[in-house]
Amino acid sequence: MPLVVVGSVALDSVETPKETRENILGGSAVYFAVAASYFTPVRLVGVVGDDWPAEHTELLKSRDIDLEGLQVVEGGKTFRWRGRYMDNMNDRETLDVQLNTLAGFDPQLPEASRRAPFLFLANGSTVTQLKALEQSLGPKLAVADTMDLWINTEREQLDEMLKKIDGLVLNDSEAKLLTGDENLVRAGHKVREMGPSFVVIKKGEHGAMFFSKHETYVLPAYPTERVVDPTGAGDSFAGGMMGYLAEQNNFDPKTLKTAMAYGILVASFTVEDFSLDRLINITREDLQRRLEDYQHMLSF
Amino acid sequence: MPLVVVGSVALDSVETPKETRENILGGSAVYFAVAASYFTPVRLVGVVGDDWPAEHTELLKSRDIDLEGLQVVEGGKTFRWRGRYMDNMNDRETLDVQLNTLAGFDPQLPEASRRAPFLFLANGSTVTQLKALEQSLGPKLAVADTMDLWINTEREQLDEMLKKIDGLVLNDSEAKLLTGDENLVRAGHKVREMGPSFVVIKKGEHGAMFFSKHETYVLPAYPTERVVDPTGAGDSFAGGMMGYLAEQNNFDPKTLKTAMAYGILVASFTVEDFSLDRLINITREDLQRRLEDYQHMLSF
Repeated sequence: MPLVVVGSVALDSVETPKETRENILGGSAVYFAVAASYFTPVRLVGVVGDDWPAEHTELLKSRDIDLEGLQVVEGGKTFRWRGRYMDNMNDRETLDVQLNTLAGFDPQLPEASRRAPFLFLANGSTVTQLKALEQSLGPKLAVADTMDLWINTEREQLDEMLKKIDGLVLNDSEAKLLTGDENLVRAGHKVREMGPSFVVIKKGEHGAMFFSKHETYVLPAYPTERVVDPTGAGDSFAGGMMGYLAEQNNFDPKTLKTAMAYGILVASFTVEDFSLDRLINITREDLQRRLEDYQHMLSF
Repeated sequence: MPLVVVGSVALDSVETPKETRENILGGSAVYFAVAASYFTPVRLVGVVGDDWPAEHTELLKSRDIDLEGLQVVEGGKTFRWRGRYMDNMNDRETLDVQLNTLAGFDPQLPEASRRAPFLFLANGSTVTQLKALEQSLGPKLAVADTMDLWINTEREQLDEMLKKIDGLVLNDSEAKLLTGDENLVRAGHKVREMGPSFVVIKKGEHGAMFFSKHETYVLPAYPTERVVDPTGAGDSFAGGMMGYLAEQNNFDPKTLKTAMAYGILVASFTVEDFSLDRLINITREDLQRRLEDYQHMLSF
């Protein structure tokens, strides 16, 4: 089933202890869309400037990602982010943010996107997420991501959005910030009590936790030696998860757990190289093989 | 099969954000022995002073823990440790250490302990661990724990010990310290290349990783809301793991993975109350039920 993602499209500059890359393809909606494209057709809603390289458009189109909802602002510049990873490859520092066209982003969902049954509001301003949600015509499943910035600055809108969505995906420190609870199991359920039917807490290299009224579980990350660039891992996780749910056109507990596993595995490929360089070079069969390894790893 | 543990026996004072307990039963060998006692008879080798409460001796004996190797030093005082946990219940600060009789601990393995096929060298000075290992008569499986203090101060002895043992258990920050590698998958294998056939990296609330020549895997912690006192979780983990291996008299890959799971589950009970208050009040059936929950959690 069609899946819509609304979020940022970016040119990232990433500094790691070993190497720096300038102006590479990034953004929450981009990582999400490419990850989800292994499972289902994706419609991306976002904004860029006229500095946006045509090759990126071609790459996304080649992955069956519809760009009807991607606004190109003439004379505008694309959102840029620069960050540096520390030696442990988990901690990172944001060195520079140039919002550019993202600052005035007013999402416009094309007709086909309004009618899409699966909707993901990728990381971005809660105000923008709410604007997109209002245009969606009763999706079967609406899930959002958020981050510390919006928890701190748009809490009222976030509380409103939490009552309108089916699921929320956020990372561990954000769950603690949102609830004031340092225990992740309690924090996950407290977020769930704010509105969504389910909550996913991303723990980076430690995997992800799932919370619904009747379930609490954790799945570990896929252990990998090769961590080149963790940028986009969380967005790829969400893309793998939502992509699988849309493909299955189902979100019962068993499907949700398998979707969590696919999210973890897609993210494990993303971090193996800069930008989308690794993720675009795998096949569904590679994912399938890693899923089997992962299931074997968790069986005893 | 009989299992021997050599390590510390302590009176701990534990401060948590909610409550403080003074002079409660603790020590690496004690947590290990009680955890292992759910699976197999245990022989404890350690030292205490004559301030050691008789009720603790009775408690350990009631769990089929043999204390022939527990030296009681007349006029001496038992090792004492005081620590404080932060709000997140993961970070802790050591406030006071009184080594007392532990400072001059010269382990003496009774005849039956020398012949025991399973040996665990719980956290303590590497010099002491080596003395115990030398007395053991060709155990089937010898496994040790270590910590940052000994990595920093007894590295030469640690390198020697690593060549003589079958397995090493250590936590994530210690694995990074020992290898200088911030990636845990690489760090685990680097430790393994220093000598032991397998390495277990404990990640606290994030579970544990296993490394052998042919296997790399991670199992998550059992998600629990109730974290009252994390002291002894790592020692309980090792006790559950080694206890199960000794019970099965086997350490093939499948048995080792199940042993890891039991270690994780025993530790999940330990943290639910101070000292051994929770761990001594469960049954093997409680462990079995949690194992089934855990297996269900990891299946999809």
